[in-house]
Order: sequence, then structure tokens, then C-alpha cells
Amino acid sequence: MPTVDIHTHIYPPAYISLLKARTTIPYIRTYPTSPTPRLVILPGEDSDSAAHGTPGRPIGPEYWDVNAKLAFMDAHNIGISVLSLANPWLDFLPADEAAAATLTVNDDIEAVCAAHPGRLFAFGALPLSAPAEQIVAEIQRLQTLPHMRGVIIGTTGLGSGLDDPALEPVWEALEATQTLVFLHPHYGLPSEVYGERGGEYGHVLPLALGFPLETTIAVARMVLSGVWDRWRGLKVLLAHSGGTLPFLAGRIESCIAHDGYLKSVGRGVEGRRSVWEILRENVYLDAVVYSPVGLKAAVDASGRDRVLFGTDHPFFPPLDDEEEWLSVKMNSDAIQKAFGEDKESADMVLGGNAIRILRLQEDADK
Amino acid sequence: MPTVDIHTHIYPPAYISLLKARTTIPYIRTYPTSPTPRLVILPGEDSDSAAHGTPGRPIGPEYWDVNAKLAFMDAHNIGISVLSLANPWLDFLPADEAAAATLTVNDDIEAVCAAHPGRLFAFGALPLSAPAEQIVAEIQRLQTLPHMRGVIIGTTGLGSGLDDPALEPVWEALEATQTLVFLHPHYGLPSEVYGERGGEYGHVLPLALGFPLETTIAVARMVLSGVWDRWRGLKVLLAHSGGTLPFLAGRIESCIAHDGYLKSVGRGVEGRRSVWEILRENVYLDAVVYSPVGLKAAVDASGRDRVLFGTDHPFFPPLDDEEEWLSVKMNSDAIQKAFGEDKESADMVLGGNAIRILRLQEDADK
Repeated sequence: MPTVDIHTHIYPPAYISLLKARTTIPYIRTYPTSPTPRLVILPGEDSDSAAHGTPGRPIGPEYWDVNAKLAFMDAHNIGISVLSLANPWLDFLPADEAAAATLTVNDDIEAVCAAHPGRLFAFGALPLSAPAEQIVAEIQRLQTLPHMRGVIIGTTGLGSGLDDPALEPVWEALEATQTLVFLHPHYGLPSEVYGERGGEYGHVLPLALGFPLETTIAVARMVLSGVWDRWRGLKVLLAHSGGTLPFLAGRIESCIAHDGYLKSVGRGVEGRRSVWEILRENVYLDAVVYSPVGLKAAVDASGRDRVLFGTDHPFFPPLDDEEEWLSVKMNSDAIQKAFGEDKESADMVLGGNAIRILRLQEDADK
Repeated sequence: MPTVDIHTHIYPPAYISLLKARTTIPYIRTYPTSPTPRLVILPGEDSDSAAHGTPGRPIGPEYWDVNAKLAFMDAHNIGISVLSLANPWLDFLPADEAAAATLTVNDDIEAVCAAHPGRLFAFGALPLSAPAEQIVAEIQRLQTLPHMRGVIIGTTGLGSGLDDPALEPVWEALEATQTLVFLHPHYGLPSEVYGERGGEYGHVLPLALGFPLETTIAVARMVLSGVWDRWRGLKVLLAHSGGTLPFLAGRIESCIAHDGYLKSVGRGVEGRRSVWEILRENVYLDAVVYSPVGLKAAVDASGRDRVLFGTDHPFFPPLDDEEEWLSVKMNSDAIQKAFGEDKESADMVLGGNAIRILRLQEDADK
């Protein structure tokens, strides 16, 4: 049973060119203070220079070179990777350029997978700033690309979140085509929530807390606006083990059940599918949670058959150039410790679930 | 073994008078659209009227009348309650009024406990807007009140968070007196994080997600600013099972270990106490998490000897006036389901831990 990495990013050449041509976030730029170009993608990172030396993070071939990806996979005994464009995807494109650029990027990624039979699959990107019919057309076109196994999206949808009624045709197309949606954070939280000393703490607070809460808020807004009730066949893989959803699902349920306003308007009480049902029937969770405590909660919430190993490569590289990445080891160790002697469950999370859910061996490279 | 409720709030008469005299949040006011006065305490609640009918929540004797508290305890088989002033405590007071008002409120609460021997204890409030020496003086004075077992504070500290260097004398006094700090959220997150349709969802998103993240951010800022390294004897009880801390501790540790900026300035790597050590040595968690999944994560993170039952009474009352409150039942059931046949652990969380940690039977009412 190969280990499968379902959370692993790539910026294909067409995307790198896009970022290098930009002058506002997201962009790639060189600085006198940095020996390598820097990738600046998080809100506010461009004003980091005073606090952090140089904005963003160094960007090298590990972001675009498939051989770097394969070397990383070999070093960590990963048999198959399901690639996805990293945040912020193509959300920043003007409406009239989005569809064409997305097609190019998706075709780039498909070609990378086709060149390495059996080892690489992918989640495609969507032109979310384009009109809905163009988004739907790309969802349908992705069905024809043999290595595509779903799509990756952020939490903003068409611009105002996943509770936007204008997304209905997109949900309809995703459900009709049974396209798995990999939901991934990017926008975080306003920087003032980290306080006036937040800038002294590097990227820790936005990455460790802002990202998971962004995902949780997005899913909760889908719950409260009825998306999961209207589109019961939707399949969504949540990054970072659901953000905080396994831990907070009980509190969300309690707050809904005790909300006088929701009751007064006849919403949120009768006939609503609970967060627990959604976690067990619609949601898959990656295992990128860095602890056995978190991994056990993810498994308790969604079931051992719905949690899938991932690495978040090429993000979180080791600071000392060790060949074995600490970020990978933390997640591998979490799986081993959470399951102990239960090797069957560990194997499911490490690869079996991904192979079954994403059809990685049945019809690969026919 | 009596069941002990360590998360249960009261607004003593002196505090109710304060709130009734105010015209900005927090306040108590009557509205033509509501048969009972309304308690308006959350940021932004005063502009809720268009979306929610009437701002805030109805406030009745359950907020101030000790007989209502005792009736609630009897109905839910709770032997002992450790009362605390509810948010927003006295944070809103002018600096020159804070110490005197806090003394009055704490004496009010002490008198309520003294009138019901063996059944009521309390966490005192602190005059956090006052000069540090007045805060320290009240910490020391609380040692002389026989029913006080700690203090309750919010996340803003002296105004700019718990990573504020000006708090050092306060941490010093709390550690020196071995005063347990009950850390509780109130301020939530900026409302824009819930999106343009957030107002349609009642109070669900700020209460279910904003509160827990506020607590998590506060603790993470204490970690990153070294509070837990400098004050190794600090004892802190975290509301709502730590917000999201048990689930996110692994991600926080990973983000610190992979942060190039923290490494470059020589912080956050060597000699730092990990979040896991803090969870097991300094932190206690209440069991107000509304699910067995969350409760198991809390126990996995801090140990079965550091998790303590609570209700959050009088908040989250049943919407249909049932005598048994759903919010209490959700937390009781979570404990039963999480531990199954292990009655010893369930009893520890339900009461044994509180009695031991807070000395509720050794020297009560001597």
C-alpha cells in the first residue's frame, strides 16, 4: 500500500510567470536582502519588512520543479501525490482573463501528472472571478482530463464567501459531476486580532490560528446558509483536518440550538442536517494537524475511512536543511501514535482511503 | 462525590446597578419590543436591531438571584458551584473607579457564597483598568476572603492583551499567591470575518467561533511572548476547553518550529516550553465543549486530572423552558460518552478534580 500525499502544492510554470509579472500581492520579487526570490502571498506580508527583515518566503525549484517534488516524495516514502495549485490560486485574476488562465494552468498540471504515470494526480483550479457559466464549464472540462481528481478552492467563492447564493450553479455542477472540492484557507483574519505585538511573532499566529479559523468559518457559513441541506451529495476535503471543525462542532451545534433569533425566523432548527452528519457524510479531512490529539479528534469526528495523509509540501521546509522534513515527521508520527498497534487504520489514513476515494489505482493512466 | 460546576456566572446586585446606569455597551435596557429588560454585552450587539429584532438577550433573576442559581443547581444535581462574574467583568470602568468598584463586587460575591455554606465558592474579579499596584493589591486582598478560589479575567489584560510587558507585576502576584486564573473570552473577532451575511445567523458565529479563537489567540500570544517561560508556576483555567487549543497545539508547535523569523532573532526555538508542556503543567480546561470528540481531545491534551465540568449558566438557556437545560445535558452526555465504562475518570471531571484543585472540601466555611 503506497503512502499517498493529498495535500501537496505546485506552482506550474504558467503560474510562476503570472506571479513574477505582478506588483501587488500575490507576487514573486527579488530583494537586495535575500539571496533568492521571495514569494509574497499572505495579506499584509508586503508591509512585513520592518518586523521580519524581508517580505514573504524564499522561493526555489521546490515550488515549480516536478523533479524536486519527486525527490521529496522519494525521501519520505510517498508513492503517490495528488498535486494542487497553492493559494491564492487564481482568485486575483480579472473576470475576463480568469477562464483562459485557469485552462492553461490546469493543462500544465495535467501534463506534469501524465509525464509520471502512477505517481502524480491533481486537483484542478477554478476561475472563480469569472462568470458562473465559465466556472461550470471548467468543472465539466476537468472531467475529461485523466489525472484530475477534484478541484481546489479558497474560502471566498465568487468574492463574498461560500454562503453566497450566486454559487448555487457551481454547487450544482460540483454535485452533478461528483467533483471532490479541496477547501483550503488563504485569507486568514484581520491582523489586528493578533494585537499590537503580533508582528513580533513571525508568521505563527496567522498560519497557526488564522488559517484554521478561516476554514472553520467558511464551513459554518455553509451550514447556516443551508448549502449542505440543498446539496446533499457535495463532497468536500477540508485542509488542516477541518481547521478547528472537529473540536468546535459541538459548540456550533449548541449555539445553533440555543439561538433565539434563528428559532424566531424558523431557521436552523427543524430538518437541518447537523455538523456531525456533514462531517460523516460529506466531509473528508486531511491529516495535516501535527499531533495525535488532533488526529484522534479528526478520526472521531469523520471516521477512520475519511481522514487522509498530507504534507503541505513545499511549505514548512526544515530550517536546517535536514533531508527528512520535521513537518512531515510530525504528521507521520501523529498517525502512528494515534493508532498505536492498529496498523490497519494507520494504513487507511496513510494511503488506503485516498486510493479508494480518489480512484488512484483503478483507472490511472489507461 | 458532588458534581461541581466551575463555569457558572453571576451578576451581583452592585454590578446590575452599574449596567443599568450605562448607555454604551455593556448595558441593561428595556425596549418596547421585549417584555423583559435586555442585556447587551457583545461588541456590535447594539446595532443588531434590524437583523435580530431586539438587541442582546432577555435578562431575568437567573442573572442575579442566588435562589435561581441554587434552583438550577438542584435541577441538575450540581452540589457545588464556583461562581464568577460574567463577561465583560469590570474592564470598561475608568481607571480611577475600577479598584473601589471591584472591591464592592467581590465583597458582594463573597457574601453570596458565605450565605450558602458548602455550596458556593467564587473566582473574584480584578480592576484591570486600574494601575498595576491596585490590581496586585486586590489579588492579595482576595486571599483573605474565605470563599474565593481564584480570579476571572478576559483576554485584553490592561488593554492590549496578555502579551503586554506591563502585566509582569500582575503575573508575579498571581504566581506568588498561587491564584488560579480563569481566562474567559468576551471580545470575539471583528464582525467582518463572518461576511456580509453574518448578521443573518443570529449570535452563532461570534459565540461558537469568535469566543474560542479569542481564547486561543490570547494563550498563543502568552506562549510567543514568553509569559509561560518567565512565570512557570502560573495556573490558568481556560474557558470552553481551551477554545481550540487542544486541537491546534500541534499546528502552533509546528508553525513555531518552522518560522524563519523567530529563528533569525533567536526566539521561539531553544529552551522554550512547548504548548504541550503548558497544557499539562499550567493549564486546566473546563469541560464546556458540547461533544465527546472535543472532550476527549481536551483530556488527551491536559490529562483527565485537569479537565473540570462546567455549565456556562445562566447563558444558553433552553428556548422552550424545559427544566433540564440542553446546554448542560450536552456537556454531561459528552463526559459520559467520552469515558464510557470508566466511571472513575468521569467522576474526576464531574467533581473530583475541582474539589482537589480548588480545595472545596478541605477548608470550606471554617
